[in-house]
Amino acid sequence: MINKSKFVAVIGGSEPSAEETRLAETVGRELARQGATLICGGLGGVMEAACKGASSEGGVTIGILPGDNRQAANPYVQIPIATGMGYARNVAVVKSAQAVIAIGDSYGTLSEIAHALQSSIPVIGINTWSLSRNSQQDNSIIPAQNPTEAVNKALNLITY
Amino acid sequence: MINKSKFVAVIGGSEPSAEETRLAETVGRELARQGATLICGGLGGVMEAACKGASSEGGVTIGILPGDNRQAANPYVQIPIATGMGYARNVAVVKSAQAVIAIGDSYGTLSEIAHALQSSIPVIGINTWSLSRNSQQDNSIIPAQNPTEAVNKALNLITY
Amino acid sequence: MINKSKFVAVIGGSEPSAEETRLAETVGRELARQGATLICGGLGGVMEAACKGASSEGGVTIGILPGDNRQAANPYVQIPIATGMGYARNVAVVKSAQAVIAIGDSYGTLSEIAHALQSSIPVIGINTWSLSRNSQQDNSIIPAQNPTEAVNKALNLITY
Amino acid sequence: MINKSKFVAVIGGSEPSAEETRLAETVGRELARQGATLICGGLGGVMEAACKGASSEGGVTIGILPGDNRQAANPYVQIPIATGMGYARNVAVVKSAQAVIAIGDSYGTLSEIAHALQSSIPVIGINTWSLSRNSQQDNSIIPAQNPTEAVNKALNLITY
Repeated sequence: MINKSKFVAVIGGSEPSAEETRLAETVGRELARQGATLICGGLGGVMEAACKGASSEGGVTIGILPGDNRQAANPYVQIPIATGMGYARNVAVVKSAQAVIAIGDSYGTLSEIAHALQSSIPVIGINTWSLSRNSQQDNSIIPAQNPTEAVNKALNLITY
Repeated sequence: MINKSKFVAVIGGSEPSAEETRLAETVGRELARQGATLICGGLGGVMEAACKGASSEGGVTIGILPGDNRQAANPYVQIPIATGMGYARNVAVVKSAQAVIAIGDSYGTLSEIAHALQSSIPVIGINTWSLSRNSQQDNSIIPAQNPTEAVNKALNLITY
Repeated sequence: MINKSKFVAVIGGSEPSAEETRLAETVGRELARQGATLICGGLGGVMEAACKGASSEGGVTIGILPGDNRQAANPYVQIPIATGMGYARNVAVVKSAQAVIAIGDSYGTLSEIAHALQSSIPVIGINTWSLSRNSQQDNSIIPAQNPTEAVNKALNLITY
Repeated sequence: MINKSKFVAVIGGSEPSAEETRLAETVGRELARQGATLICGGLGGVMEAACKGASSEGGVTIGILPGDNRQAANPYVQIPIATGMGYARNVAVVKSAQAVIAIGDSYGTLSEIAHALQSSIPVIGINTWSLSRNSQQDNSIIPAQNPTEAVNKALNLITY
């Protein structure tokens, strides 16, 4: 059942590198294999690759869109949510998830990382931002070396 | 498949009459029987009754919540979306649907009717507001006498 | 001082009749004369006419815009707020006011009336929607016959 | 006139250090001296200190609040905007400004920095986050050594 599954957001930009696209698709596939529901921003790039991967394994995919038009979702989104709220939808993407996997280093992704950390939602990062303050590294983003490690860490951190 | 199904929002207040509760549950049940996906505001009252009805027939239920906490969803919501945006989430509820069924006459429901009509999303009403301007009835809310008629009208009006 | 003044929202569509434009401008002028701060949605039509009237009397005008671009405000907005949140900004327009004056009968205006009534913010109406439920008139929108009456009623209803 | 003035957001957390509080107050004072309008999130901490500084020099202060209640604004906010949209209001804070001054290192501040950079709004930082990707420093946050330098850099970067 969907509502017993864990909800994980995959966040990343709409213009990823080839490597990031590959990572995102593998993350999506692995989430679906482990029975998790995928949440994303619903558009192209990392979002589409993750949904494509999840769909290939029969997973459920949710796209929380910035615009008014549910038809703007990428073709692998099964459940499009049209917020009409622009980048403010980034807040809804992370708050609807129990853990977040960040891929790549767009500023939109950084905003989602920040909203997640502010809400104490765990963030796993692959090829993403690193943060420091007062010349000291902030270790809140949990690093993963590959998609499987990222998915395992995300699912293990969900305890409710 | 979920993404071939029609998405219908059921809107109504959290403190409905017994009659409205019964109507909402029947609407939810009938939507599920006809393969539609139910969207609502995720809380109690009409929203919960509709989700309960849909669940009893194996339908998919989405709750777009005002708050930060996905666990605030009623127990029949399978896909909780935590927007953290308060009543502004009313916009997302209707914009994510292809048709709207309004039950009862809370002001929150009126705001959702207005947002839907503004976006040219059809609204079917049962026991709900009626609107007039310059002493003339506005007939934008399509009346239904009972839940089955409401569901049939909603699904027939979805052409894309 | 601005922060001792009363904040009143003037809501109305972007394509008003000539009569509604005239009403809005007079409402704006009268609000400024009585020292109130004007809040609106920042765009054209009723919003622009109200700001124009207020500006002509040296009043303060705030425009809470749907888009990302503060330069989209009409030329009489002194304080543009760019929410980037589309129609969800309608909620912010009314919640930032202590009373609301509604002019005309667009669906956007109806959504703002509903959000205001839901929040127990008084709504004064001129040439606007009338509401009924169960064949009974809902008298929550306080009628005014002309701009001066609307402004007086709005300011008298602000008690904090 | 307000609408000829430059609009600068001061962003920072609600639980700043004593040093950050002092910095914020000085930034607010200097902005007002130079005729800029101050935008902030409207609450305590850095936001209140900046508004206090600006008010002491007769500046205009705008607080874009997360909640429903305009009375939740700090006492130095002259223009409270009640969005009711929670942290999504962070987007409106930065988008309503022509430049942003970031003080301190809360996650909320990081989200605002990210939203500003995503929108190409210049960000000046004092005692704030530093960002890197792929082991390389991202230099998008323009550093300032003190409040006066921060204000001068912010105002010089506003060219429209």
